[in-house]
Amino acid sequence: MSIVTTRVLIRGTGLIGTSLGIALSRKGYAVSLSDPSPTAEQLARDLGAGRIAVEQLGESGDQARPGDHPDAPELVVVAAPPDVAAAVVADSLTCWPTAVVTDVASVKGAVLAAVETAGADLTRYVGGHPMAGRERTGAGHARGDLFEGRAWVIVPTEVSRPEAVRAVTRMAQDAGGAVSVMDALAHDEAVAAISHLPQVAASLVASQLRSLEDRALSLAGQGMRDVTRIAASDPRLWTQILAGNAAAVRQVLSRVQEDLGRVVEALDEVADPEAEGQLAVLNQAITDGNLGVARIPGKHGAGPAAYRPVTAVVPDTPGELARLLTAVGAAGVNLEDLRLDHGIGQPFGLAEIMVVPSAVEHLQQALRDQGWRVLD
Amino acid sequence: MSIVTTRVLIRGTGLIGTSLGIALSRKGYAVSLSDPSPTAEQLARDLGAGRIAVEQLGESGDQARPGDHPDAPELVVVAAPPDVAAAVVADSLTCWPTAVVTDVASVKGAVLAAVETAGADLTRYVGGHPMAGRERTGAGHARGDLFEGRAWVIVPTEVSRPEAVRAVTRMAQDAGGAVSVMDALAHDEAVAAISHLPQVAASLVASQLRSLEDRALSLAGQGMRDVTRIAASDPRLWTQILAGNAAAVRQVLSRVQEDLGRVVEALDEVADPEAEGQLAVLNQAITDGNLGVARIPGKHGAGPAAYRPVTAVVPDTPGELARLLTAVGAAGVNLEDLRLDHGIGQPFGLAEIMVVPSAVEHLQQALRDQGWRVLD
Repeated sequence: MSIVTTRVLIRGTGLIGTSLGIALSRKGYAVSLSDPSPTAEQLARDLGAGRIAVEQLGESGDQARPGDHPDAPELVVVAAPPDVAAAVVADSLTCWPTAVVTDVASVKGAVLAAVETAGADLTRYVGGHPMAGRERTGAGHARGDLFEGRAWVIVPTEVSRPEAVRAVTRMAQDAGGAVSVMDALAHDEAVAAISHLPQVAASLVASQLRSLEDRALSLAGQGMRDVTRIAASDPRLWTQILAGNAAAVRQVLSRVQEDLGRVVEALDEVADPEAEGQLAVLNQAITDGNLGVARIPGKHGAGPAAYRPVTAVVPDTPGELARLLTAVGAAGVNLEDLRLDHGIGQPFGLAEIMVVPSAVEHLQQALRDQGWRVLD
Repeated sequence: MSIVTTRVLIRGTGLIGTSLGIALSRKGYAVSLSDPSPTAEQLARDLGAGRIAVEQLGESGDQARPGDHPDAPELVVVAAPPDVAAAVVADSLTCWPTAVVTDVASVKGAVLAAVETAGADLTRYVGGHPMAGRERTGAGHARGDLFEGRAWVIVPTEVSRPEAVRAVTRMAQDAGGAVSVMDALAHDEAVAAISHLPQVAASLVASQLRSLEDRALSLAGQGMRDVTRIAASDPRLWTQILAGNAAAVRQVLSRVQEDLGRVVEALDEVADPEAEGQLAVLNQAITDGNLGVARIPGKHGAGPAAYRPVTAVVPDTPGELARLLTAVGAAGVNLEDLRLDHGIGQPFGLAEIMVVPSAVEHLQQALRDQGWRVLD
């Protein structure tokens, strides 16, 4: 909604920086790009993320550039790796004495502390965290709609100027993000539980598969696949994220460690009829999981999902799933989610179509009328 | 492939027993059903799982029925809950002195040990485990194709007669299962790692969400959703499964406990520059997860998947996904898997269409030609 073009400098042209450049360029921002790697800069430019910044931006850039220079950025977005984000933020606050500076690091407390220690001007700094992480990295996977519909947490300091918060918020929204505002501590504790814990859990579970026999692996079902999907994430990036949010991650992992200890102890003693209450410990662990998973919000940030599945058999040939979903659309039913489940060595799969409960019977009948095999 | 009708008695008419009854009845087996609950028996019958067994089968049935009685079962399938499976297997071996007996309990060592202790005839017992568990239970979710394409592990004892193994194998295959043969110990260790570990991990991670603030929960993305999906499983059933496989589950959980301990310790010390090597510990944990998840076999029991995604934007209105997949089919490309990802508060989602690498460019072009927004 900017009336005049906003001049944005994006420092760091990996997946996030390049995607942001593409998104903001499309919205009419004047985006310039810089990266320690000239190749990365050129790739980002070629992908339409903006023009390469004219000035040489050294690591040691403690000499202030005049804020009224016609090319000086009004907003600097630091999209460097988490372990150098703070230094680049502090450098940017010093180099451009009137610019608002934000970053995209997935941990905020450590960055804030380091920027503060560097003695930089915190009134112009507003942290940010676009939650668009993927199992992939690198500008090669960049895309302009990476942030669309994704949470983008804005993390003002205690002294951030209101107009700085507004500028960063508007930029995040222009990139497609769904903005929420938190302080650094609340943010770091939230992502420790919501994002860093599942990553560690997935990695530790998947790690156990390394030494498993092939015939045991062949029994892996959808449960194992779901739990371990994000175990494919980038070790270098995640090492920085975990180290950068060490205190909060340690806290939530310690709680899991205690719960796990109780389960292991119960399994130890469950064979002994003298040791009562061990089954109750196991039962509690699974019940607590029921309660937790029920709190996860549903699609589009709505309340927890209460959709029901309609399951149909789909031959594994081109176009069959489309034919099924055409029938779903023709029945006037909105598909809320879809899960495909493949049989072992079978030429078909099961499609679980999630719909609102009131649509289940109607949809089952409609699909059967068109010859689909629908499970009860 | 049975030339004469096989008489099967299914003892226990929950999800598995009822589904099996429906599957075998359709294949021409003469299925009779029994369950301690007359209501459960009647429900299973009404769902087409077979007829209700004429004889009263008491818990104390230690009086042998003549094996040559025209109604005597040739095969007894014990589909009782895990904690009573062994007793019902032993009872069945005693009651029908010529029948082959199998069960469907998801742990095998404990059942075998208890049957052995009971002094029953192990030459006619062949354990089994159809891996068709779901987050749901109860005959209400039963369906005849529950087992189609699913692994069904057959677990002979050291003295099982070959014809008994053949009878159980044929039954499992007739029900649609993909049979593999293991001994009890190998089976229990395999499912501890492949199935019981992910369940415990999902439950413990989800459990942490119970006390989280709503605004933190609102940041939950696909990673958390995937990791915790099976946390919705039935606590009663899982308590029995974990207790029944206590030794093997304890073993794999202990290894995870050690790994987790190393991660927590590294997070503790990572802030201290004196303590070297802590980043390496974190990096190793994520890298080991990479290696493990890469070993999971792909669709249809083939080698690990090497599909690539083609990602398209899909408006959230009836029929749009179908229209997209129709375009995929029209392009002659086989969809290997599909993942839907919904934006927060956005009227569209992203469809990630997994295809063989050689089809990526062709499909992207074909979809764009038809006006779809395809991400790079």
